[in-house]
Amino acid sequence: MNRKTKHLAMGLILAAAGVTTIAVAAMKPEDAIHARQSIMRVMGLTFGPLAHMAQGKIPYNKKEFVAGALRLESVWEMNPTGRFFPKGTDKAIFGSGIAEYTKAKPEIWSEPAKFKKAAEHASEAIAKLAQAARSGDEDAMKSAAGGVGKACKGCHDDFHAK
Amino acid sequence: MNRKTKHLAMGLILAAAGVTTIAVAAMKPEDAIHARQSIMRVMGLTFGPLAHMAQGKIPYNKKEFVAGALRLESVWEMNPTGRFFPKGTDKAIFGSGIAEYTKAKPEIWSEPAKFKKAAEHASEAIAKLAQAARSGDEDAMKSAAGGVGKACKGCHDDFHAK
Repeated sequence: MNRKTKHLAMGLILAAAGVTTIAVAAMKPEDAIHARQSIMRVMGLTFGPLAHMAQGKIPYNKKEFVAGALRLESVWEMNPTGRFFPKGTDKAIFGSGIAEYTKAKPEIWSEPAKFKKAAEHASEAIAKLAQAARSGDEDAMKSAAGGVGKACKGCHDDFHAK
Repeated sequence: MNRKTKHLAMGLILAAAGVTTIAVAAMKPEDAIHARQSIMRVMGLTFGPLAHMAQGKIPYNKKEFVAGALRLESVWEMNPTGRFFPKGTDKAIFGSGIAEYTKAKPEIWSEPAKFKKAAEHASEAIAKLAQAARSGDEDAMKSAAGGVGKACKGCHDDFHAK
């Protein structure tokens, strides 16, 4: 593939994926909402099996646990709580044509320091889980998964509507 | 946190995240659709800056490029094309109450061998990108990003409606 063809191919795929060069600050509300919801769903899909292993609900599989813990760390680096909650993104116009509210509570924007602290708590718990995964210690991994679950729950309780 | 409290906290967060112990085969169509759409969006959000660095549209940042390449590898391990396209998930009932079609083309299910091959092509391109990232060679990374863009585009052209 020559340089021009390569650029064309990448440009097309980026357009198809809805990815543009505009800054996050200039994102449309629905794009910010979709981004954070997607990131959070990937976090949840990844954390689910880890929590179930930690709880003994499914057999512990070291390889899968470690891969999941490192994925949580990597995806969390996308900084969903910092980048994708700009003001005015409590609602957006989706397919219906009418502005729909998301499950993001108003406290995200009215209590930013508290929201930031909750996110930092999650960052610490995720870092601890990744560290435990790298250590290879099964008990440490399972214990750290509990810490991540608690951090997720704490933030959801305060900032995510049921 | 004692064992019981830990289990309770994790159970609550999993319920909040919509994560359950049911097998993927038993997932509701809308859950499979949301899962694959979220995974693909995270892939797109991650690949965007890499492609722009490879194209020279934004400055090359080695640390960010490597982190993004490894994230693509890690998230792709969730196997979106293998796990989250069960038959009958071309459409689902979302908020509107009426079954809505997704952008997944019928060829995904009518030409499964071709779909699988396209996914394998993506897997190879992503593995090559991750390998280049680990090598630390800037030219290899940029070139491999072109390969990933081409693989994404090839699959989208055939299996993803505009």
